[in-house]
Amino acid sequence: MPTLHPERAFDPEPAVRALARDLYATVKGLPLICPHGHVDPRVLGDPDYAFGSPADLLIIPDHYVTRMLYSQGVPLEALGVPRLDGGPVETDHRRIWRLFAEQFHLFRGTPTGYWLAAELTEVFGIQKKLTAETADAIYDGIAACLADPAFRPRALFERFGIEVLCTTDGPADTLEWHRSLLDDGWGSHPVTGLPRVRPTFRPDGVVNLDRPDWRSQLDRLSDIWGREITTYRLLLDALGDRRAFFKAMGARATDHAALTAQTGELSDAEAEAIFARALRGQATVEDAAQFTGHMLMEMARMSVEDGLVMQLHVGSYRNHNPQVFWRFGPDRGADIPVATEWTRALRPLLSRYGNDQRLSLILFGLDESTYGRELAPLAGHYPALRLGPPWWFFDSYNGMRRYFDLVMETAGLANTAGFNDDTRAYPSIPARHDLWRRAAANWVAGLLARHLIDERDAQEMMLDLAYRFAKAAYGL
Amino acid sequence: MPTLHPERAFDPEPAVRALARDLYATVKGLPLICPHGHVDPRVLGDPDYAFGSPADLLIIPDHYVTRMLYSQGVPLEALGVPRLDGGPVETDHRRIWRLFAEQFHLFRGTPTGYWLAAELTEVFGIQKKLTAETADAIYDGIAACLADPAFRPRALFERFGIEVLCTTDGPADTLEWHRSLLDDGWGSHPVTGLPRVRPTFRPDGVVNLDRPDWRSQLDRLSDIWGREITTYRLLLDALGDRRAFFKAMGARATDHAALTAQTGELSDAEAEAIFARALRGQATVEDAAQFTGHMLMEMARMSVEDGLVMQLHVGSYRNHNPQVFWRFGPDRGADIPVATEWTRALRPLLSRYGNDQRLSLILFGLDESTYGRELAPLAGHYPALRLGPPWWFFDSYNGMRRYFDLVMETAGLANTAGFNDDTRAYPSIPARHDLWRRAAANWVAGLLARHLIDERDAQEMMLDLAYRFAKAAYGL
Amino acid sequence: MPTLHPERAFDPEPAVRALARDLYATVKGLPLICPHGHVDPRVLGDPDYAFGSPADLLIIPDHYVTRMLYSQGVPLEALGVPRLDGGPVETDHRRIWRLFAEQFHLFRGTPTGYWLAAELTEVFGIQKKLTAETADAIYDGIAACLADPAFRPRALFERFGIEVLCTTDGPADTLEWHRSLLDDGWGSHPVTGLPRVRPTFRPDGVVNLDRPDWRSQLDRLSDIWGREITTYRLLLDALGDRRAFFKAMGARATDHAALTAQTGELSDAEAEAIFARALRGQATVEDAAQFTGHMLMEMARMSVEDGLVMQLHVGSYRNHNPQVFWRFGPDRGADIPVATEWTRALRPLLSRYGNDQRLSLILFGLDESTYGRELAPLAGHYPALRLGPPWWFFDSYNGMRRYFDLVMETAGLANTAGFNDDTRAYPSIPARHDLWRRAAANWVAGLLARHLIDERDAQEMMLDLAYRFAKAAYGL
Repeated sequence: MPTLHPERAFDPEPAVRALARDLYATVKGLPLICPHGHVDPRVLGDPDYAFGSPADLLIIPDHYVTRMLYSQGVPLEALGVPRLDGGPVETDHRRIWRLFAEQFHLFRGTPTGYWLAAELTEVFGIQKKLTAETADAIYDGIAACLADPAFRPRALFERFGIEVLCTTDGPADTLEWHRSLLDDGWGSHPVTGLPRVRPTFRPDGVVNLDRPDWRSQLDRLSDIWGREITTYRLLLDALGDRRAFFKAMGARATDHAALTAQTGELSDAEAEAIFARALRGQATVEDAAQFTGHMLMEMARMSVEDGLVMQLHVGSYRNHNPQVFWRFGPDRGADIPVATEWTRALRPLLSRYGNDQRLSLILFGLDESTYGRELAPLAGHYPALRLGPPWWFFDSYNGMRRYFDLVMETAGLANTAGFNDDTRAYPSIPARHDLWRRAAANWVAGLLARHLIDERDAQEMMLDLAYRFAKAAYGL
Repeated sequence: MPTLHPERAFDPEPAVRALARDLYATVKGLPLICPHGHVDPRVLGDPDYAFGSPADLLIIPDHYVTRMLYSQGVPLEALGVPRLDGGPVETDHRRIWRLFAEQFHLFRGTPTGYWLAAELTEVFGIQKKLTAETADAIYDGIAACLADPAFRPRALFERFGIEVLCTTDGPADTLEWHRSLLDDGWGSHPVTGLPRVRPTFRPDGVVNLDRPDWRSQLDRLSDIWGREITTYRLLLDALGDRRAFFKAMGARATDHAALTAQTGELSDAEAEAIFARALRGQATVEDAAQFTGHMLMEMARMSVEDGLVMQLHVGSYRNHNPQVFWRFGPDRGADIPVATEWTRALRPLLSRYGNDQRLSLILFGLDESTYGRELAPLAGHYPALRLGPPWWFFDSYNGMRRYFDLVMETAGLANTAGFNDDTRAYPSIPARHDLWRRAAANWVAGLLARHLIDERDAQEMMLDLAYRFAKAAYGL
Repeated sequence: MPTLHPERAFDPEPAVRALARDLYATVKGLPLICPHGHVDPRVLGDPDYAFGSPADLLIIPDHYVTRMLYSQGVPLEALGVPRLDGGPVETDHRRIWRLFAEQFHLFRGTPTGYWLAAELTEVFGIQKKLTAETADAIYDGIAACLADPAFRPRALFERFGIEVLCTTDGPADTLEWHRSLLDDGWGSHPVTGLPRVRPTFRPDGVVNLDRPDWRSQLDRLSDIWGREITTYRLLLDALGDRRAFFKAMGARATDHAALTAQTGELSDAEAEAIFARALRGQATVEDAAQFTGHMLMEMARMSVEDGLVMQLHVGSYRNHNPQVFWRFGPDRGADIPVATEWTRALRPLLSRYGNDQRLSLILFGLDESTYGRELAPLAGHYPALRLGPPWWFFDSYNGMRRYFDLVMETAGLANTAGFNDDTRAYPSIPARHDLWRRAAANWVAGLLARHLIDERDAQEMMLDLAYRFAKAAYGL
């Protein structure tokens, strides 16, 4: 793969590049801390888990890949994306792969293209660039790897140097795979004995009343909790119990997603009334927004009590394309960011809990205009706040560059939370962390070359960004 | 002109510069595709058209020039800008030119300064920098050129290497100059036989009910259509007929401008009611916004049917300065951008037509904070969408740099539409395309120098950005 | 201090760096123009003023410093920040200093860290980096300096090369220290005879009805004016008289802060009614916003009449953290920016006064997304407008870089107002101006290296940015 140069992503200016290369060299081999992501726990929980075909692994489930092809007129059916109505989709994975290979030029200059190139080369040892001509040979090469036990997820986990990986799980999840991992010798770190795979408590499904599947999620929670959740008060009790269960299973954090950052406290009576309306199918959009904002307050309160780190992901308008949603369901590349307001929206929560060091609230947004304007000043003041790394579309070379430039001067490094890969795409994990480490090295090198920091500072900053901050922010 | 260096606008880092120079060299001589702009068709339609004085050509009609001088206290009257009330303005064009030359330092570091320097040097062969001292000599030099038939618009068209140029025309326009061009041998490309000058259908004047001249525009449309437009339904019929006429006259696209991106469907009864209120002079601001949003839906529907590419320019608060508007009319440099919301606003249109590949909708905005947050994710998903190049104030060295950095990682190159010059200033056309080609070369060179792409990718990307995308996006 | 390199903050690319160094050398020694800031006039008015301990000077009053430590869990009490309730705070300044030194790594890559390093080295001659180990020695070194008359404020004023410094003063201020300075030989510039320290009229306290201390501020104004301000009309009269007094005392400007840029004219009856409600303690949030917007119009009108430059600072949500506000009062690092809209909000004021060259209105904002979208187009059109330099969090290396890139192409340099330090931290003044001069040199050098300007342009731009614009914009 001619694009996988050892000095890739470094600044072209020779002095900066040399500094970046040296800084990067000091962290390149450090273990990977993966405190937030979407790898299915079964992938690691089942020691016999296999990835399927190259298309199963790299195309069909990856909405970064499929949405780009779709945007250029390739039907999702032709990529094997399953239809909710069971309608016909391409089942010949080699044909899917060829179609992808023919269109691989669409990914020029994109993070997806970068990660895929890195995966092919570094994980699967492919030496050729992916094109229509090389498609079959590369397919065969990957398929041969995937048949090899050395490419099973657990083997890759160790090859990738992952120290710990956190999954994201619904509140009704049994965490059976996490339990298997705890019961299984492999699931504990060989040196520290700590869990290598930890769950994360994400209650959005039962907290965001406007989700189309809210009622079924609530019923699932009732089922596993063993009592029907007929009131807001019971919902709180159920969530408290499930948090305790997750914590006992190794969770270090919760995760919450919302369209806006709105927070605000309702009285018990108001919360009960909204919940009752929701149960009757009569909750309004405003009800749902208020309830979500209130539950974020409650989750912060519980985090103060149980010590689980609270993650908040704000600003994605989910399922923007109804035709795609009806035909293929969620997570098909049709989630579009909206402008986000944090200063006023978070004030109720921060007024109440922002000065409490028992709370650690990590914020993630999709509106870069708020990095310097709102997020960095907030994180640079409130003890409870940290900023997560660039999220989603901004988990990219330029996204990282802008993040460093826009956030760090005001927030200070120590109010950030290092990197997380936030990915479903297991084999892309090392490439993602590697890009962050390169981008961080580049940024630190730039400060050093401008004599804004000294060498000692640079080395400490490098270690913080590449490893220590993520570990500290999540208590891993 | 000492500032017109052959390596201007390239990155100073020698390795990047060398790559940029080489990439640029491969596209420097390619023909210019001008799919959107505001050149008066008479300029090319009338074979004897002459530009008048240097002030007529370069100062009086160019609101980029006049607004900068105005901002520093130069009255528009002193620049010869005609007053609506016929009040006195400077008529000595040499004096206007001298005033401009004395203030030319105001354009340091601005795109206007850059284009003007390039025009003077490359088009008119001026070797000196414009100052108070050189003003007269340069005036004389330009005037001498303008008297020369080699500087007539058609001669410059060929010298500039323009392959095709699209004008922007009202729905009631007779397109007489386009007809002359079609009837005239010169109007067809000598090799392909395709029209060299094409109209674009821009119905804003009859669609945006809140325009002060809406009624007179509607009357003009009634006149040319041959039937009084007394209902919304008749308006649709008239627009449909005029679209067909424009298409027959060579149009490839429509163009629409709106303050916001709001779209949404009205029932026929609602649309008729609003139209009736407008005819009675009783339409509200909200009526106008809803009607514009509805008509954008209708225009998308018609584009699906007739294949005309749909351009949408959003976010300019027109005629912000009432004193200037009352005295000098529109387009005097007093249009100021506002923040734009796309994700929610375009959803009605995209839900209905965004998956239809018969539609090609090209978006232009003036809010760079939406590049990465909204526009790139939208374009990177919907098959019908492409993003236009940086518009207006952002058609600049830094504007292009930010566009590449903010858009491409998420949208992918192929969901963009290349460059257009969007200019009234005919002799600035080559300088504008040249700056884009330099900026694109620079950006591609930066990716190559960072080993994020390989040389083959770089060459393809360069050709796409400089020539092929614009041609493909508009079917030219 | 190993980080204080003579070429600090310059671009690493050797050619750009060489140009920046040469440009910087031409302005490095120019006097400092300080047209806006928050130095207490007593500091200069009292010839015997002494700074106290190193912690008094550099830590306790500097909310840039204390908020960063607070964000990482250091109680403000431990930093000696006085509590409103008189509760216990650390009084051992050496211990405060040690705590700060131990945490000085938090300021890596921040402007505060940069300024502090520069102050220690350039002002106090400290050669070591501040760490836990060097804390005591550095404390002693600074304390020894502070005991030396050569480190009294007036001596530093001359050593810093300050030509003129403007303070910011309430409308009821007696300006006694300014009077002392006018009466004292030192207060006039030895060459020009002009005042070296000028007041600035900032009437926010009596104009923003929603300030918790509005009534007491109004009473103070009544007291000094000599008549009880019982009506809006009397308020205008009082403000007019106080403006005249400030002008007589050397003021060149007024200053106004508001959460939003909203402007709009009320009728006299409306203004009187709101003022009456405010006197009765019944003004609503909307009343206060309308009154502020109206008073901005009145202040512009008065500026047209009396020639005082009008400064407007918009976009800070003050005292965001109620717990900190209740315990420690305002200005403790808990002011957080919000998104700002200028285009619509300023239109009433600009429609009325924006074309009047007797008005000079200088805008400052905290929303960088408006630099290119709204502020630069506005300043590039209206004769009355100039843009102030990057403010507050954006008064930083990257903030300046973005400001140059986002503002200058559209606004043109001449519509900006040079630099001001806006600081309370007297000994940081030279470091702040120096960083601006370096950043400006860097930016101009980048244009020159890209051949977008020539050497003559570069030199003029450098002088404008470093010295002439600030002087011209405020008539100093």
